[in-house]
Amino acid sequence: MFDGLNLDKLKEECGVVGVYRSKNIEVANMVYYGIHSLQHRGQESAGIATNDGLNPHFHKGMGLVHEVFNDNIFAKLKGHIGIGHVRYSTTGESYVANAQPLVVKYRKGSIGLAHNGNLINAHLLREKLEEEGVVFQTTIDSEVIVNLIARFSNEGMIYAIERTMELIKGAYALVVMTEEQLIGIRDPHGLRPLCLGKLEEGYVLASESCALDVLGAEFIRDIEPGEIVSIDENGYKIKKFEKTPNKASCIFEYIYFARPDSVIDGVGVYQARKNAGILLAKEHPVDADMVIAVPDTSIPAAIGYAEASGIPFGEGFIKNRYIGRTFIQPEQSLRETTVRLKLNPLKQSVKGKNIVMIDDSIVRGTTSKQIINSLKKAGAKEVHVRVSSPPVAHSCYYGIDTPDRSQLIGAIKTVEEIREILGADSLGYISLEGLLTSTGLQKDTLCNACFSGNYPINLDEMQPYKVNKK
Amino acid sequence: MFDGLNLDKLKEECGVVGVYRSKNIEVANMVYYGIHSLQHRGQESAGIATNDGLNPHFHKGMGLVHEVFNDNIFAKLKGHIGIGHVRYSTTGESYVANAQPLVVKYRKGSIGLAHNGNLINAHLLREKLEEEGVVFQTTIDSEVIVNLIARFSNEGMIYAIERTMELIKGAYALVVMTEEQLIGIRDPHGLRPLCLGKLEEGYVLASESCALDVLGAEFIRDIEPGEIVSIDENGYKIKKFEKTPNKASCIFEYIYFARPDSVIDGVGVYQARKNAGILLAKEHPVDADMVIAVPDTSIPAAIGYAEASGIPFGEGFIKNRYIGRTFIQPEQSLRETTVRLKLNPLKQSVKGKNIVMIDDSIVRGTTSKQIINSLKKAGAKEVHVRVSSPPVAHSCYYGIDTPDRSQLIGAIKTVEEIREILGADSLGYISLEGLLTSTGLQKDTLCNACFSGNYPINLDEMQPYKVNKK
Amino acid sequence: MFDGLNLDKLKEECGVVGVYRSKNIEVANMVYYGIHSLQHRGQESAGIATNDGLNPHFHKGMGLVHEVFNDNIFAKLKGHIGIGHVRYSTTGESYVANAQPLVVKYRKGSIGLAHNGNLINAHLLREKLEEEGVVFQTTIDSEVIVNLIARFSNEGMIYAIERTMELIKGAYALVVMTEEQLIGIRDPHGLRPLCLGKLEEGYVLASESCALDVLGAEFIRDIEPGEIVSIDENGYKIKKFEKTPNKASCIFEYIYFARPDSVIDGVGVYQARKNAGILLAKEHPVDADMVIAVPDTSIPAAIGYAEASGIPFGEGFIKNRYIGRTFIQPEQSLRETTVRLKLNPLKQSVKGKNIVMIDDSIVRGTTSKQIINSLKKAGAKEVHVRVSSPPVAHSCYYGIDTPDRSQLIGAIKTVEEIREILGADSLGYISLEGLLTSTGLQKDTLCNACFSGNYPINLDEMQPYKVNKK
Amino acid sequence: MFDGLNLDKLKEECGVVGVYRSKNIEVANMVYYGIHSLQHRGQESAGIATNDGLNPHFHKGMGLVHEVFNDNIFAKLKGHIGIGHVRYSTTGESYVANAQPLVVKYRKGSIGLAHNGNLINAHLLREKLEEEGVVFQTTIDSEVIVNLIARFSNEGMIYAIERTMELIKGAYALVVMTEEQLIGIRDPHGLRPLCLGKLEEGYVLASESCALDVLGAEFIRDIEPGEIVSIDENGYKIKKFEKTPNKASCIFEYIYFARPDSVIDGVGVYQARKNAGILLAKEHPVDADMVIAVPDTSIPAAIGYAEASGIPFGEGFIKNRYIGRTFIQPEQSLRETTVRLKLNPLKQSVKGKNIVMIDDSIVRGTTSKQIINSLKKAGAKEVHVRVSSPPVAHSCYYGIDTPDRSQLIGAIKTVEEIREILGADSLGYISLEGLLTSTGLQKDTLCNACFSGNYPINLDEMQPYKVNKK
Repeated sequence: MFDGLNLDKLKEECGVVGVYRSKNIEVANMVYYGIHSLQHRGQESAGIATNDGLNPHFHKGMGLVHEVFNDNIFAKLKGHIGIGHVRYSTTGESYVANAQPLVVKYRKGSIGLAHNGNLINAHLLREKLEEEGVVFQTTIDSEVIVNLIARFSNEGMIYAIERTMELIKGAYALVVMTEEQLIGIRDPHGLRPLCLGKLEEGYVLASESCALDVLGAEFIRDIEPGEIVSIDENGYKIKKFEKTPNKASCIFEYIYFARPDSVIDGVGVYQARKNAGILLAKEHPVDADMVIAVPDTSIPAAIGYAEASGIPFGEGFIKNRYIGRTFIQPEQSLRETTVRLKLNPLKQSVKGKNIVMIDDSIVRGTTSKQIINSLKKAGAKEVHVRVSSPPVAHSCYYGIDTPDRSQLIGAIKTVEEIREILGADSLGYISLEGLLTSTGLQKDTLCNACFSGNYPINLDEMQPYKVNKK
Repeated sequence: MFDGLNLDKLKEECGVVGVYRSKNIEVANMVYYGIHSLQHRGQESAGIATNDGLNPHFHKGMGLVHEVFNDNIFAKLKGHIGIGHVRYSTTGESYVANAQPLVVKYRKGSIGLAHNGNLINAHLLREKLEEEGVVFQTTIDSEVIVNLIARFSNEGMIYAIERTMELIKGAYALVVMTEEQLIGIRDPHGLRPLCLGKLEEGYVLASESCALDVLGAEFIRDIEPGEIVSIDENGYKIKKFEKTPNKASCIFEYIYFARPDSVIDGVGVYQARKNAGILLAKEHPVDADMVIAVPDTSIPAAIGYAEASGIPFGEGFIKNRYIGRTFIQPEQSLRETTVRLKLNPLKQSVKGKNIVMIDDSIVRGTTSKQIINSLKKAGAKEVHVRVSSPPVAHSCYYGIDTPDRSQLIGAIKTVEEIREILGADSLGYISLEGLLTSTGLQKDTLCNACFSGNYPINLDEMQPYKVNKK
Repeated sequence: MFDGLNLDKLKEECGVVGVYRSKNIEVANMVYYGIHSLQHRGQESAGIATNDGLNPHFHKGMGLVHEVFNDNIFAKLKGHIGIGHVRYSTTGESYVANAQPLVVKYRKGSIGLAHNGNLINAHLLREKLEEEGVVFQTTIDSEVIVNLIARFSNEGMIYAIERTMELIKGAYALVVMTEEQLIGIRDPHGLRPLCLGKLEEGYVLASESCALDVLGAEFIRDIEPGEIVSIDENGYKIKKFEKTPNKASCIFEYIYFARPDSVIDGVGVYQARKNAGILLAKEHPVDADMVIAVPDTSIPAAIGYAEASGIPFGEGFIKNRYIGRTFIQPEQSLRETTVRLKLNPLKQSVKGKNIVMIDDSIVRGTTSKQIINSLKKAGAKEVHVRVSSPPVAHSCYYGIDTPDRSQLIGAIKTVEEIREILGADSLGYISLEGLLTSTGLQKDTLCNACFSGNYPINLDEMQPYKVNKK
Repeated sequence: MFDGLNLDKLKEECGVVGVYRSKNIEVANMVYYGIHSLQHRGQESAGIATNDGLNPHFHKGMGLVHEVFNDNIFAKLKGHIGIGHVRYSTTGESYVANAQPLVVKYRKGSIGLAHNGNLINAHLLREKLEEEGVVFQTTIDSEVIVNLIARFSNEGMIYAIERTMELIKGAYALVVMTEEQLIGIRDPHGLRPLCLGKLEEGYVLASESCALDVLGAEFIRDIEPGEIVSIDENGYKIKKFEKTPNKASCIFEYIYFARPDSVIDGVGVYQARKNAGILLAKEHPVDADMVIAVPDTSIPAAIGYAEASGIPFGEGFIKNRYIGRTFIQPEQSLRETTVRLKLNPLKQSVKGKNIVMIDDSIVRGTTSKQIINSLKKAGAKEVHVRVSSPPVAHSCYYGIDTPDRSQLIGAIKTVEEIREILGADSLGYISLEGLLTSTGLQKDTLCNACFSGNYPINLDEMQPYKVNKK
């Protein structure tokens, strides 16, 4: 999508799925629908790898799930074990070579691996491996991980994974596939989500429970931080990695990334967002005629705000849902208002009214400014912006694409300055306390580094520049 | 899109756009964004024709606007006059030969023409023309219309159009382009909408005002039934076709077809839908915990219902927006619940609640049944269905794709029978009176034949079977 | 293909095929292989239309036969009657709208028509039809022809064709298809070839007999000038158009256009070319070490020259056969010698030798100059150019794409001047007399206007500028 | 290309190109034209990798060179060093993952590598590496080679290559690229060809000298068996690998693989083929009317045979050059004679004649049988087959795709049996002695294992089944 039509949001970096079914039941179709239900987690590339018990098969490509696969490709994805991956759309370089799953041959057979997250010490591990003569064909962390697993593989796969987990630092939800088993791993802090479901004749692993719903799977439980779940013909077993520190799961899943119908670590995403709206109404009340949302992700918070404040909920924008990758560039006269191509203000609804506009997050502030301006032009008397997350002020190193701090409006401006830049009549962010409360989880089990700068994993070993996107 | 993922709705049949700009200002880009903003009116094919004052240029193809055009094609679409067209996706045969605009050479130069609507006597006119030796290369009404215009063209284009209007019966909003002018025509009943906007250096004609918003055009006025607006370097002129009967504009534009941010014949679509929800709450009150909408088109009515009833508005479904044309067929076990791939119920929101589910219309009832069932499975205690339009009981012959009457559940079942089939705890349709009231228009100026069977145009001359889709 | 890689030749303008088979035997596959065997007659677009006895079906597109069709498309091309068309690649504008066959509906059903040739009075007929109100959707002659046939169709198809033939002037080989019959027509001068073959269960019409070979059809006979052959379930009937003047079939078919394995009007193309080489050796003998051909079309003449002169035949160039439409432009340093990318001189074969290089024709002379230069650089001592056709000095108006006269080197330079421009050590063209003799046909039955300027059809009615390419 | 249209030939397995130019001169265009001129060596996939002195860039894909690349891709292939690769079309599985060049990151930077040939001990080396924990992402030998080079890289690239050459056994012509240099390597037996050329501002390495001609490079010399040529900003240096055994370059390059305009190890390919024809005429004379070739590769031998025998050379077949990958399958009635679609006999040339048909090689004999039969049907009185290579009776393990011995007609039948199977009136193969003589090289410097079974490299370490195709 072209500049200006991308709303100003953080970018999730991946979604993973794994499916294990009884022998002779093909699995590719389920993996396909699984990653399709996680498409919101990544639109840049998609891939599926399967294993028929003897050999791996895979296909990956740039684009949306339904663009990358066709019936001819499907005919080749044989097997009763399968994993899938979607990756988000960066504005920078992106190659099919970096698409996942990664499938390799090693001394014991084959490994397929798909990764959601980001290792902070991948560069160090890569250097060490290179020192020993290893060559790398991609720039993704998965290739580091799979090399480590292969090296430790002489005493079994679970042992190899544990040895690997001792070395890798950062965020990871992994699905791993061999000729015999499907394995799911969640990093010791549980930064990225992963859950397990039961099919009539098998099991599903997925980044979010919405994939389980779509596949008709019964939710079993979330994979806990540091857990390794291995699934084979005898069912599933869970082993806990010993050195498991405090939990620090990503709070942004609740704010923006996850699909609202997902339940992560026991918390319904829709409900958490609605709660945030309710708390926001208490923290930043305002007298107004209508509560509107920046569609689509802010709707639950707006519903909560409306309910708590008694101000009626209404629609303020119409979103054009037919924006495609190959869009013709708008001519100069249209470019100044390109946001309007995607998000047209609903004049008849907002005209003459005092509006509370709920946004789930503000990153650079560029889009917010444009849409507030468009509301005003459409006749809104006052626009009061309420944000259901605190100012984003710190970069994420655990798998989320954040701009440089200098571009984070929450890092460099006061709330009053931001209000003025945006052209809002008032501006209120939910407090971090309020946001943490909205999830109903124990507050110290959530990573909120992007707001607070409290990074749960020591960044000393972090690579000097961010090179990997998974 | 494959079977089961198409929600059960009537299909709009087209959208048209025309742009006239000062000489030497290229127009193709604006036409592109114009039809892009009308993409909801048709996803099967798209086309743009331009005229540079000397020659016409055109391109059309199957698919969405952003799929059909690229920069190389754009480079050839020279000119300061242009028209565009989108056509809906039928399940039956569809050829690029039937895409629009239609561009022909005739004795005076060239004519480009795009049509939204359906002529009921096209077959008779076609036969008469064939008797005189005319050959047809397509099955679209536009080819009949353009033949008639060409035959009457010796005394000028407006004269030719008036002569043509005397012969053609049915629904039509037309944009017509020659080397010198852009012309817009709305049929004498005004069945299909058309409006006029002003650009800094030109004019826009469009099926809906949302296209004007996107192009930054100022709304001038709706084209009235029977009006012919012709635009050239001297500005625009409007002529009224003499034999103009009572107005009978299509009420379904307000219910479902139009974008909510459009204003048609002075009535805001969002507001009309919200009003219908308010009236529906009065006609069919119910005691419940939450009002939800079948997304996206029923949201305004649901907001109205919630406001009028005092029951809180909430979300009940999550819609997967990444469904594409080339989707892999789901395997048997998934197929039974394919609606879930597109519309997953929001368990955490609906569980244990008494729900009012607002739908804007029910055609066959098949999808409604599936989604009500999915709400129940997700834990909804009661599901009370409220429909913001009366039962669809009669076919449309004026440009909307309606199933055979035998498949219209509103034509063959009582409300109680429908409720039972759908598995709803209660079912209430808005009255026709209420729906008409919701628009705020004079009631006898709206075509409501699909509900009442009162067809504003005599159907005696109608072709025995429907062959044309535009 | 990009500039410089197109050898300097006249361009054939089309090939046509028609197949009629017993009811219930599908015909599309045979039409496909028929036009594939005529691919040398046109590489710009390809099309197939079929009729299943009730309805026509068709598909056409830009590109080579194997690029335009796939299995999905084939599944729709039902029927036991079919026609096909290939069209050549121009450097100018070319639209899929101008691809053939043209399929129309008219009062009696449908007509499919494919045309090889060029009408000289199409513009006049088009104007007359436009005066009567007819509109045109393409710029091809076929649309004029099909309009005329439709107008005259009340007294039967053969009558309509005869009435049409009275009006149209120029070159045409036509295949026409209705619900019941397949018809082949050759213009009264027989400018473009057409022949008839017998299948086990049907008949084939084709521009060249090589298509009959490929389809396993038995050659019945050439269609004579002015003949109309109509094929239906009762077999074939031939009717002669009354006003048939002297035969004037195109001599360039023998020189360059036709495939050497075709037999046209009783004359084998390979044999005619070889004969021309033999006569050329007698007219322009030279003392040399080796006879080489500009591949591929000049090989038969080179073999003839070698045989007659006793000088051994050898290869002088290697042709790269993997040149595609989407070629990357060579960088500047390579561009100067782009001919080398397609035609590399065979150093080891030509070094130190006196060479006779046989070319079948020279149009602009640009390529000849480059390849003679490349031979010299490769070490050839002397290069004696012998051309198996006289200097091309006049434009063709009967369906061949000739450059403007000012660009025909044979029209503006003497042989000696040409020799000097080309850098040849000697240059000899076969005489017109010799060329005519080489075919073995009666000399006054061949059109040789491009050499002599003697146009067999009066050009008074010719359109002032050439607009149509078929 | 579909079954039956592939003539019965051995398949070359690759072509490689490397170009080094002065800094700031882009190299991708030259690499493109280099591999394009080697397209005959492989049509399955194509790839280019470049290095701009800091980073590698690459693109590879399935298809012909002109299909795989476009201008957008080119814009990313920055750099003054580049390598390219074409790979042949197998009938079996083929993945883009196996396309070359292979580009990896290792401790010192990046390595790009492209390989023509086949290692016989790749499986053993792969196993050893896997034992040490190495993972493999492809099934190509290049990945083994590049791992070895990386492991030995601490003491410099040339040292690493020499250590690698001590381990790998088999046939290889390699081009290797780093940030600073381009390196060419020919295996110690010289099984696969490689030559060096000079550009105005750089150097070219290529499998065949025809690539040098096309790029306007001056031929410097062949890389000798066991030589390593390294090119950097100081020019080129050549180092000889110590343990270099007897030369054994592949004789099939002269028979069929190489382009006739190439000069390999000092011998012109065209001339060698013509010589073989001359010797064949002496070994197997026959009284006949015309010598024809199976086009295109047998033409030089046929010219030689004609010259030596005094029997005139003529054309016997017309080859359709528009056969594409996506061909529609011919229907049953056409399938029996599918060879005719590609190779139609030239009736007018062969009818009533005694024919000598020269073929450069016979592998399975299936195509030969069909085309001899087609000549007979076309009226040839007698068909005397003369083959310019001995019977192929042994599989190749050095990079050529040979069928299983049981399918090699020369391995399982006597010449008289073959003659009878083919339906030829007589059959003569050139003697191995004669073939060796035709090249003018010392006889013991050529690998002729496919005829004699004398394998120059001990096959003891050979992998039990052939898995790798490069």
